[in-house]
Amino acid sequence: MNPLYDIIAFDADDTLWHNEVLYTATEAKFKELLGKYQPAKIVERKLHQVEIRNLQYFGYGIKGFTFSMIETAIELTEGQIRGADIQRIIDYAREMLEADVQLFDHVEGTLAYLSQSFRLMLVTKGDLLDQEMKIARSGVGDYFSQVEVLSDKTRESYTGLLAKFDLQPARFMMVGNSLKSDILPVVELGGCAVYIPYENTWAHENDTASGGGYFELEHIGLLPEFIDGQRKMRTV
Amino acid sequence: MNPLYDIIAFDADDTLWHNEVLYTATEAKFKELLGKYQPAKIVERKLHQVEIRNLQYFGYGIKGFTFSMIETAIELTEGQIRGADIQRIIDYAREMLEADVQLFDHVEGTLAYLSQSFRLMLVTKGDLLDQEMKIARSGVGDYFSQVEVLSDKTRESYTGLLAKFDLQPARFMMVGNSLKSDILPVVELGGCAVYIPYENTWAHENDTASGGGYFELEHIGLLPEFIDGQRKMRTV
Repeated sequence: MNPLYDIIAFDADDTLWHNEVLYTATEAKFKELLGKYQPAKIVERKLHQVEIRNLQYFGYGIKGFTFSMIETAIELTEGQIRGADIQRIIDYAREMLEADVQLFDHVEGTLAYLSQSFRLMLVTKGDLLDQEMKIARSGVGDYFSQVEVLSDKTRESYTGLLAKFDLQPARFMMVGNSLKSDILPVVELGGCAVYIPYENTWAHENDTASGGGYFELEHIGLLPEFIDGQRKMRTV
Repeated sequence: MNPLYDIIAFDADDTLWHNEVLYTATEAKFKELLGKYQPAKIVERKLHQVEIRNLQYFGYGIKGFTFSMIETAIELTEGQIRGADIQRIIDYAREMLEADVQLFDHVEGTLAYLSQSFRLMLVTKGDLLDQEMKIARSGVGDYFSQVEVLSDKTRESYTGLLAKFDLQPARFMMVGNSLKSDILPVVELGGCAVYIPYENTWAHENDTASGGGYFELEHIGLLPEFIDGQRKMRTV
């Protein structure tokens, strides 16, 4: 039996690879597209309102974001926007879905090292097909014995995940960049959580204050040393 | 140990509840919307072409279908369609996502009976959030010890599913309405498959000829008797 964790689980978007930058870049193109109708500030504010409103219907991910761009475009032009411009928005979606997956520094080495001693799991939220395609393109999929895509990451969904694989919270570690999605629900359940902040994390993700009880690392390359440190403390 | 199967897995859309009728009804509204530009036959043919082309990007489900309607509308109007009409198409999507889940006859009784002796699993493909919302609204979610949403149902995805739950194919039964998605891949892997045809099954779903080796029932209400018959044969 492994001395510390049965599973070390990783968030993917903005923990293993860049994701938010794709949305930021697309949003910039979108603001330019609507520039002849509305100033960028108005477009930005409206888009974020529509995104929040649409989460319950369309969930997290590129497809939901794209519907929100289309609806924003229609609302801000009072229905006058033409199909050709809507097509450009859908083309943005296809470009996002096909974009290269850019791993952060140290990801491959960290996963290679930890997978020698631990079962690794990938736990993402968002769109199933999109996440599967990114994992396939990332080149690091083989380090994970399990990939779980959740529609949202809440205390309930982590409870379900732990039950599904018959895991004790105290033997489960979650590593991620979102306090709301990766860290706080796991801490509440009695798991171990390692927070690796990402500077561009989406505003909506960070609307929950930290309750403490988790660890924080500056980058993922520090994780092996951190876990080795935990191991030594336990065996002393 | 249960004498026959460790898991009886069910497809959901058009096996437990109506699904295709929702698409058919929405397609009818869509053809009417585009009626001032193109005859219904043209719209239908184009939409099905666009759907096939988009599967690799947007996958199965309401969101992908909606992008295909929008792109069809743009292409068939040469970009002239207005935002207000695109908004109507997105509103169709919201209506589909919120539609009541209509169970087929005998579903509840069949699940109640079988869940006394077997672990039941729901195995659907399509959009994760949409499927979760339908399961929650269906009222039969509690009969299932596990729900798995796959981006596609192929031999590979069933292999992954069996490995994930450490299941032997011979002790796995799959029940569904699609030869291509529910029956043939399971038969190939050595599982038991029960085909319950649904008259409106989407044309694209049935493009694979039957290789035999599965059972066929007229409706799901016949499943308990069928399985009881199998049990008696094994115990004689």
